[in-house]
Amino acid sequence: MMSDLEFLFHPKSIAIVGTPRDPKDTAGGAGFLNALITFGYKGDIYPVNPKAREIMGLKCYSDLASLPRTPDYVISCIPASLTPQLVRDCIAKGVKAISMYTAGFSEAGDEGAKLEQELVGLAREGGVRLVGPNCMGIYCPSTGLSYQSGQSKEAGCVGFVCQSGGNSNLVALMGLDRGIRFSKIISYGNAADLNEADFLEYLTQDVETRVIAVYIEGPKDGPRFFRALATAASTKPVIALKGGRTKAGTRAAGSHTGSLATAEERWDALCQQAGAVQVYSLEEMLDLIETALYMKPPQGRRVGIIGWGGGASVTSTDACESAGLSVPTFSSELRQELARFAFGPGSSVSNPVDSAVVTNPSLFSKAMRIMASSNEVDLLLVHLPLDISHIVGDSDIWKVAGETVLETSQSLDIPMVVVQPHTAHPGNSAGFYALQQRCVETSLPLYSSAGQAACAISRYIQYHLWRSR
Amino acid sequence: MMSDLEFLFHPKSIAIVGTPRDPKDTAGGAGFLNALITFGYKGDIYPVNPKAREIMGLKCYSDLASLPRTPDYVISCIPASLTPQLVRDCIAKGVKAISMYTAGFSEAGDEGAKLEQELVGLAREGGVRLVGPNCMGIYCPSTGLSYQSGQSKEAGCVGFVCQSGGNSNLVALMGLDRGIRFSKIISYGNAADLNEADFLEYLTQDVETRVIAVYIEGPKDGPRFFRALATAASTKPVIALKGGRTKAGTRAAGSHTGSLATAEERWDALCQQAGAVQVYSLEEMLDLIETALYMKPPQGRRVGIIGWGGGASVTSTDACESAGLSVPTFSSELRQELARFAFGPGSSVSNPVDSAVVTNPSLFSKAMRIMASSNEVDLLLVHLPLDISHIVGDSDIWKVAGETVLETSQSLDIPMVVVQPHTAHPGNSAGFYALQQRCVETSLPLYSSAGQAACAISRYIQYHLWRSR
Repeated sequence: MMSDLEFLFHPKSIAIVGTPRDPKDTAGGAGFLNALITFGYKGDIYPVNPKAREIMGLKCYSDLASLPRTPDYVISCIPASLTPQLVRDCIAKGVKAISMYTAGFSEAGDEGAKLEQELVGLAREGGVRLVGPNCMGIYCPSTGLSYQSGQSKEAGCVGFVCQSGGNSNLVALMGLDRGIRFSKIISYGNAADLNEADFLEYLTQDVETRVIAVYIEGPKDGPRFFRALATAASTKPVIALKGGRTKAGTRAAGSHTGSLATAEERWDALCQQAGAVQVYSLEEMLDLIETALYMKPPQGRRVGIIGWGGGASVTSTDACESAGLSVPTFSSELRQELARFAFGPGSSVSNPVDSAVVTNPSLFSKAMRIMASSNEVDLLLVHLPLDISHIVGDSDIWKVAGETVLETSQSLDIPMVVVQPHTAHPGNSAGFYALQQRCVETSLPLYSSAGQAACAISRYIQYHLWRSR
Repeated sequence: MMSDLEFLFHPKSIAIVGTPRDPKDTAGGAGFLNALITFGYKGDIYPVNPKAREIMGLKCYSDLASLPRTPDYVISCIPASLTPQLVRDCIAKGVKAISMYTAGFSEAGDEGAKLEQELVGLAREGGVRLVGPNCMGIYCPSTGLSYQSGQSKEAGCVGFVCQSGGNSNLVALMGLDRGIRFSKIISYGNAADLNEADFLEYLTQDVETRVIAVYIEGPKDGPRFFRALATAASTKPVIALKGGRTKAGTRAAGSHTGSLATAEERWDALCQQAGAVQVYSLEEMLDLIETALYMKPPQGRRVGIIGWGGGASVTSTDACESAGLSVPTFSSELRQELARFAFGPGSSVSNPVDSAVVTNPSLFSKAMRIMASSNEVDLLLVHLPLDISHIVGDSDIWKVAGETVLETSQSLDIPMVVVQPHTAHPGNSAGFYALQQRCVETSLPLYSSAGQAACAISRYIQYHLWRSR
């Protein structure tokens, strides 16, 4: 039974019960009010706090009953012990959804688990749906719904079902520079009522969502989750990270979201059978989201590598083949065609192509176009050296090479990706950031290392092979 | 038979044969002259080029015979076909060492391999040692020896034997921000005469070298290399990366440095028996160098994790346990002691410790000190959120938390590391860079992800276990 959750993402009014008098006071509850106001939420916002008359310029109400209308959505920031009454009040007022930031339930031990069960019982009886408890709730930029100041106002096409509020923020913030934007993020915590399967089903049919990412510490209903995952993955790319893969990680997940253990082997099998692409860290998740957003599915696993630096050519080739891609030797015809551009001693044209031609825009572009139209590879991987400007003694050459790659990528018949190492040094980092923003504009995947690139690309190809099986 | 190579690293005069008239002209040879002059090499430099009278303000000589004295070191930038005569000229002049940038030897095919053999025959007969060919040669900051402008003038204690000039540059430049400095870097290319074993033996006894890194595409003399590696690893940490681990990578290595295949399993066994710490990418090499430089060997594998964010606590714990470290549950006494600091709902004190206490300097420091002196863990891993300032609404809090960690680390009995995610966005990157530079000053290892940290630390512990076996 699929739940129609559309109403959750488009509330016309929101009450924040337990709004701290200083809405920046994170000790007294998260900055939900601050987030909604700074985000520009257009609906009505009702702060509820019996000890305040006004908070951040908004009239404050002493309780839910005294609100001028029934809010579509209630955020709970009150202590756990008071939440059963809140659920009763919500039912009495006709509220349809409560997002419970409040913690201290199943993640905190047996007492909390009992309280959580009580809440679910009340909610189901009264017909109100719960998100959480122990969660940040819903981010939906098209509605102006935000749970943390600093979240992007720009909507994108990635839907993220994330059991951890902190991890949802980390992925969203790390993704900003890479052009990754979200249609919806659901931080759903202990999943007492609505769970991962509900949200996954919702994102599967959501037309605003093109790629789905999930971070799950423990599915609440294994069989239903499997069905939801399989349906989702047969519809759009699904990238899945399990939090609590190890014994101690499972224990940490228990303290975090009250999640129960799922054996690692079982999770692996579940993802594999469902066709979800498994990743092992948030960094890998970001790499794969970027790949899925920007890259047309390659028709095979053959990579053509071009760059300058014999060592980098070797390590890039190793990275590709270790990740399950192949770097085939070019035919003698193709090698001869490439060798015509005066590749000197120390160069190689057999794939990987290693040549100073990278510093000559027209020849570099020509080499990439010849490789791309050869029918001998399914995608191109271009690696640019960190120190190209030092080597050549020309501070512009890095930018010129980058622009050559960007421009050429637009006219190729096969997908292309770029690898550019960088450091945090302001000069180097600024150059990388500029290239990154140009890549985002051009929808060209950019990675910091060949290992990251190869790993993400290989998994992406695996997903499309599975879908076209 | 160990070679005494001290003379190679301390030349009092250098001739560059085939110096391009424009020393920035990389097509006509690398910028060796430019590098030596900008680096401030104190000895005599003799550019040799029959077509020029002066290059970069230095008198230029038409050939080796016309030099006013015998140079200690000759860099060859002439075409391959002319190098046998150069070797003869060097022998006639009494030169002891030639670094051959010249390419077009065994990496280029059978003809080149024959020429390379001829060179080696001539050199051994005449008593001159060759570095290369097809290499950048030697970087030794204490002598002022540099092969690339932009190399650091500051000497450090890492010795790097690197078959690839480009990879040596990449590691050196990527290491700069992390406080990694080198005693010597040897880019040795085809290893026709002096090979990896010679340089490894040299660095083993070199008092300026405390940590050794090697990047090798193919050892020239397997048994001797194994002995050299084992001796080195029993003396100081040795970090080893094989270029050409895969079939296509081996082919690329053949085109790059004329290296022959070494089966991956054989290489793995060789490193394991010799006690060298194997890494699988240059990024992992940098992580491990930083660990070896800054971290006192932990007494065991038990990690105490502290940070703010339930999800980050779970993923950090998974990263540690996946890498072979353990994250033990704290005793009830320790949990009670930690719980006294008003850890509220949503916090955890059982290890990982997850708490907003990270934003309160004195309590945060106290928590770290209690964990460190508990005898329940062997090292601390502190993870700071990317978005701590956003969450708390205080732009200084990130810096304050960082300084608290830095200060506390100075008084702990067990080692500590920091994990701080970051992006290339100028604001975020600048904050990370500032923290990074403070960590370098304090010799505190800093990583961008828990996965990187755990992987490097686990291998470092493995090395010390092997040494104390």
